Amino acid sequence: MKALVYHGPGQKAWQDVPDPAIIDPTDVIVAVDTTTICGTDLHILKGDVPTVTDGRILGHEGVGTITEVGRAVRTLSVGDRVIISCITSCGVCSYCRQQLPAHCLDEEGASGIGWVLGHLIDGTQAEYVRVPFAESSLHRLPAGVSDEAAVMLSDILPTGFEIGVRNGRVKPGDVVAVVGAGPVGLAAMMTAGLYGASRIIAIDLDDNRVEHATDFGATDAVNSGAVEWKDQVLAMTDGLGVDVAIEAVGVPLTFEMATELIRPGGTVANVGVHGRSVELKLQDLWIKDVAITTGLVSATTTPMLLRLVRQGRLTPEKFASHQFPLDRITDAYDTFGRAAETKALKVVINR
Amino acid sequence: MKALVYHGPGQKAWQDVPDPAIIDPTDVIVAVDTTTICGTDLHILKGDVPTVTDGRILGHEGVGTITEVGRAVRTLSVGDRVIISCITSCGVCSYCRQQLPAHCLDEEGASGIGWVLGHLIDGTQAEYVRVPFAESSLHRLPAGVSDEAAVMLSDILPTGFEIGVRNGRVKPGDVVAVVGAGPVGLAAMMTAGLYGASRIIAIDLDDNRVEHATDFGATDAVNSGAVEWKDQVLAMTDGLGVDVAIEAVGVPLTFEMATELIRPGGTVANVGVHGRSVELKLQDLWIKDVAITTGLVSATTTPMLLRLVRQGRLTPEKFASHQFPLDRITDAYDTFGRAAETKALKVVINR
Amino acid sequence: MKALVYHGPGQKAWQDVPDPAIIDPTDVIVAVDTTTICGTDLHILKGDVPTVTDGRILGHEGVGTITEVGRAVRTLSVGDRVIISCITSCGVCSYCRQQLPAHCLDEEGASGIGWVLGHLIDGTQAEYVRVPFAESSLHRLPAGVSDEAAVMLSDILPTGFEIGVRNGRVKPGDVVAVVGAGPVGLAAMMTAGLYGASRIIAIDLDDNRVEHATDFGATDAVNSGAVEWKDQVLAMTDGLGVDVAIEAVGVPLTFEMATELIRPGGTVANVGVHGRSVELKLQDLWIKDVAITTGLVSATTTPMLLRLVRQGRLTPEKFASHQFPLDRITDAYDTFGRAAETKALKVVINR
Amino acid sequence: MKALVYHGPGQKAWQDVPDPAIIDPTDVIVAVDTTTICGTDLHILKGDVPTVTDGRILGHEGVGTITEVGRAVRTLSVGDRVIISCITSCGVCSYCRQQLPAHCLDEEGASGIGWVLGHLIDGTQAEYVRVPFAESSLHRLPAGVSDEAAVMLSDILPTGFEIGVRNGRVKPGDVVAVVGAGPVGLAAMMTAGLYGASRIIAIDLDDNRVEHATDFGATDAVNSGAVEWKDQVLAMTDGLGVDVAIEAVGVPLTFEMATELIRPGGTVANVGVHGRSVELKLQDLWIKDVAITTGLVSATTTPMLLRLVRQGRLTPEKFASHQFPLDRITDAYDTFGRAAETKALKVVINR
Repeated sequence: MKALVYHGPGQKAWQDVPDPAIIDPTDVIVAVDTTTICGTDLHILKGDVPTVTDGRILGHEGVGTITEVGRAVRTLSVGDRVIISCITSCGVCSYCRQQLPAHCLDEEGASGIGWVLGHLIDGTQAEYVRVPFAESSLHRLPAGVSDEAAVMLSDILPTGFEIGVRNGRVKPGDVVAVVGAGPVGLAAMMTAGLYGASRIIAIDLDDNRVEHATDFGATDAVNSGAVEWKDQVLAMTDGLGVDVAIEAVGVPLTFEMATELIRPGGTVANVGVHGRSVELKLQDLWIKDVAITTGLVSATTTPMLLRLVRQGRLTPEKFASHQFPLDRITDAYDTFGRAAETKALKVVINR
Repeated sequence: MKALVYHGPGQKAWQDVPDPAIIDPTDVIVAVDTTTICGTDLHILKGDVPTVTDGRILGHEGVGTITEVGRAVRTLSVGDRVIISCITSCGVCSYCRQQLPAHCLDEEGASGIGWVLGHLIDGTQAEYVRVPFAESSLHRLPAGVSDEAAVMLSDILPTGFEIGVRNGRVKPGDVVAVVGAGPVGLAAMMTAGLYGASRIIAIDLDDNRVEHATDFGATDAVNSGAVEWKDQVLAMTDGLGVDVAIEAVGVPLTFEMATELIRPGGTVANVGVHGRSVELKLQDLWIKDVAITTGLVSATTTPMLLRLVRQGRLTPEKFASHQFPLDRITDAYDTFGRAAETKALKVVINR
Repeated sequence: MKALVYHGPGQKAWQDVPDPAIIDPTDVIVAVDTTTICGTDLHILKGDVPTVTDGRILGHEGVGTITEVGRAVRTLSVGDRVIISCITSCGVCSYCRQQLPAHCLDEEGASGIGWVLGHLIDGTQAEYVRVPFAESSLHRLPAGVSDEAAVMLSDILPTGFEIGVRNGRVKPGDVVAVVGAGPVGLAAMMTAGLYGASRIIAIDLDDNRVEHATDFGATDAVNSGAVEWKDQVLAMTDGLGVDVAIEAVGVPLTFEMATELIRPGGTVANVGVHGRSVELKLQDLWIKDVAITTGLVSATTTPMLLRLVRQGRLTPEKFASHQFPLDRITDAYDTFGRAAETKALKVVINR
Repeated sequence: MKALVYHGPGQKAWQDVPDPAIIDPTDVIVAVDTTTICGTDLHILKGDVPTVTDGRILGHEGVGTITEVGRAVRTLSVGDRVIISCITSCGVCSYCRQQLPAHCLDEEGASGIGWVLGHLIDGTQAEYVRVPFAESSLHRLPAGVSDEAAVMLSDILPTGFEIGVRNGRVKPGDVVAVVGAGPVGLAAMMTAGLYGASRIIAIDLDDNRVEHATDFGATDAVNSGAVEWKDQVLAMTDGLGVDVAIEAVGVPLTFEMATELIRPGGTVANVGVHGRSVELKLQDLWIKDVAITTGLVSATTTPMLLRLVRQGRLTPEKFASHQFPLDRITDAYDTFGRAAETKALKVVINR
């Protein structure tokens, strides 16, 4: 088959590789119908993720059709249309049992991380992919939900919801600020209404992005380039700060912005992937009764989000800014890699 | 009457002052039977709390007997024995209604902080004290609970419980590490069993203190001066870290220790009062699904803790390491100020 | 002034009565701008509520303007526009402190119930009303929210939300069934989206009512007169039942319907006021991991709901089916009393 | 091998049967070292459980040693000492994923119930037992925990904790009443302290049993045969009722007792297995803000309880009132069946 293979920093190729085969009785083989590219894939290509080695097929998002099932698989069948979770869950370790498969202890070749596809084993940017622990890691897709919508349930939408909205403990009536209006920030905005936020404030340096955010659920937009950005946000509260601040960028400055906006008793939910330390002003924060949360998506809410998509309460297909056929995936990478210029949110890649 | 009056950094005096009088109809005057000294009082004396001005009577902890009630007070009467909460709650602002009077918006002369006694108005280290918003800020003391036990419910025990144990989300079976075996750390250890912790590990540099900790509920003791202290703690878990790490010192090093001990999915509850920034290693923590919490006690759990004291399930009188009569309060300060040497935990000062 | 006075079963009059006056320093006098009639008022008139005695001014809902404040009132002023909560909260008893003022222990002339207006003391269906414990029982109304919308926050909307949706523990993705599409059922439907329900199924015997329900947030409507009503509801689930069933009628049959619809692990939230016992089929339910909840509104969520109304996220003015001037309140009673015929939801009565 | 086989109402035999064998790749065979008898086994023998058919080996509790593992089993090995959960969990259905395997949808030959051992497939009262979905249904037993203690973690202790204490939402300081001081009531008493109950009141008709209860964690004992039993219980509260009432008998009278004891805002947790309807006095309860919960144990807390046993914080070996060798299991049934006379709590049966 053909697949997108990583060959060390800066190197990738759409090339011929052997077809995947069932190894363990709990495995399933899926023909990939639709995949997409994550910011993490760009990090890998920069060489930022040394656990990804030369020869690895990339990709941890996808929708497909089952072509083969292992002997121990009871509840999935050849021909089933499925969402491939970005997290592979053994289903039995202590983390999987507590609904935190992000830290699954029993993955193939690794320990303590549930993200294995396109990382520690071959991934979804290929014609076929082997999915271990398939019954715990795939979600059957009902008729009536498009591949385009469904592929957003592999990673981006659960990330915004679980790590931003749910960790942030958003509750009815809350004012929620989201720092960063990129895809994951927008996913948090789209799902903040699930806990009844009264205002959802998009904060970004780019005017286009913040205005665009109102299509994804934001009620207000603030350009953080403006000197008075913080006053603008506080004016949307009772003056004491927001109830929940979601950091969706991953640099020290935006993390600090989130901690400055938070009201006493509020929550800062960090979603951004950080590469270095931040300064935490505990001399100010120790007294404020705040919680700061972090996390890698576990994607345990994918079935719930799928119910909402099916009922038309969520429309994640909006994230699909560009479409490519699978054999033009390198073009898709190019478009996604220049998102500031191409305005790409998620590039959808169809077989 | 006589009172302990602050006169600027390093200066205090046990001196004559006018008796307090009812100002607002919701006020009560309490004759102080027992008081104690908090680490915060020492900070004030060092000049670290500029909002405390020359002439202020110190003290925010106490047990006493009501001598006068304002016209709007319905549920308290002259002669009632009461615990004086360290937090004065107006009972009606949005923070008081959500059980966070630490951030009460309607205090006398201040905004946004419920700690006013011995801070923004005269306090409890005196023969009498005026308590505003008395019905929301005093707790009637049943017969059979000693002053010595009750005075620990003004601040120290609710602080350890609310900011350490409850913010830390301790749950049955958890392994809890408490960094710092001073009074507030011991208060966290004493109350961690209320949520069924399986192990409570005391960590401190002082051998005496950590061993002593087992009298206060700790099941295990680790001296953090040992090179292998972290391995010792991890060996008391499944190897992945503790479920809850409570920071009860207030310096960058101990905060870092807490973040290093925490397992994926765990909680770091900061109780220490910090004077400067700490380095938060988000490059490691972003993925770990941890929560870091902070807070000032609201003392809303005082009635609940009192029930447990009354039933003999908690014995906070253990904190009373020294006893002084009220007119020797400056000696009490001396003893408490040299705690490393005197082994003082809480010095109890009786009229 | 003029007021609507109860004179025993079946007897009421719009008549002259003395103006109310401040009694306690925590009281406030409010000029009633808008009031409405509750189903409970009809029960009182039938003689079903013996604690209401001859001479009582009825009404526990209202919006008005403060004309006088007691000496202990600090945060409210003459001229303030306020929502009058149906529950009067002393703010300091153990139930008020735990946010359950429905069971306030310190009310005027009563014990253990926070509903006193139009019950144990004179109520809001009058030109003026005295409100005890005013700071805990009134909510300042910001500009831009109509009286018509605001009066729904006295009782009906918090009842549907607190006792139906919140007690029912609705969570994102849930399928919620509401048995009974009268005003309180509609209030539950309108607020079920605040916790992200995927489907909200209105169930009623009356075709008009169930269809109407979709204007109030219902996504689906089932006529329970149809033989196959239960199958219709189950077909909107995965076949195992709804996650939350809200009973909003108050008779044994509808309670049983709710318990029949519930899936294992689900919650039946009873909102209806029941006059007699129901048969609880514990032989079936003991194994099902269900919770059955009951409650009287505490109206502690009124400020939160008000934020959502102000932002346009909730539009409770939809409940206002009829309008009357205050001096025609007996006509309003007539219209509301014949709701089946007049299609009245809430009749709004303006000064 | 030998096993205890059910042969229709009133009929059982300790007899030769074929050894069990691996059927599915996720199966394991366990040599039973210790088993015990549940009240449910007596119900089966009376013919109350028609889904148990002639020829079925009884028993759903046990501790043993693995003798064979299926091909898909990765985390368990021959020779491992394990606790056999009374609930068999597929690990992947929606109920198992939400930690409610009591309602597992994918069991062998059944649907919607996780209790299959000794019910729908052969059970643990035998020399060997086949355990399906072994990785989700067995718990590895560390050295230092006795079989006698461990076998109580199959069913009785998690039942008391999950369905009594946890469903009852016991919180620190609560007064908890347990109606019924049989084994499951005692299991609730033993674990109520895990959430910091201030009083745990044992209520039973039998003086021996209630007094005995203080060995299992009860702080107070009330004989419900006394006319004034209810007043005695209320006198242990503030007069308004208990915070949590746990029903651990399973007849209408005891359920009513629980609902009469409950304070406004409290929870009635039903643990008893009921054979007929009860009268629920909604005319009294609708206003009380109570929750009534039911449930079948899911045994998801077994690993947590095991940690507490290992640390000596729980001592379930106290339930072992009698000991029998496996080949005298019919004597064990006789002793357990006459518990009122023999004072049997749990009879421990060792290979």
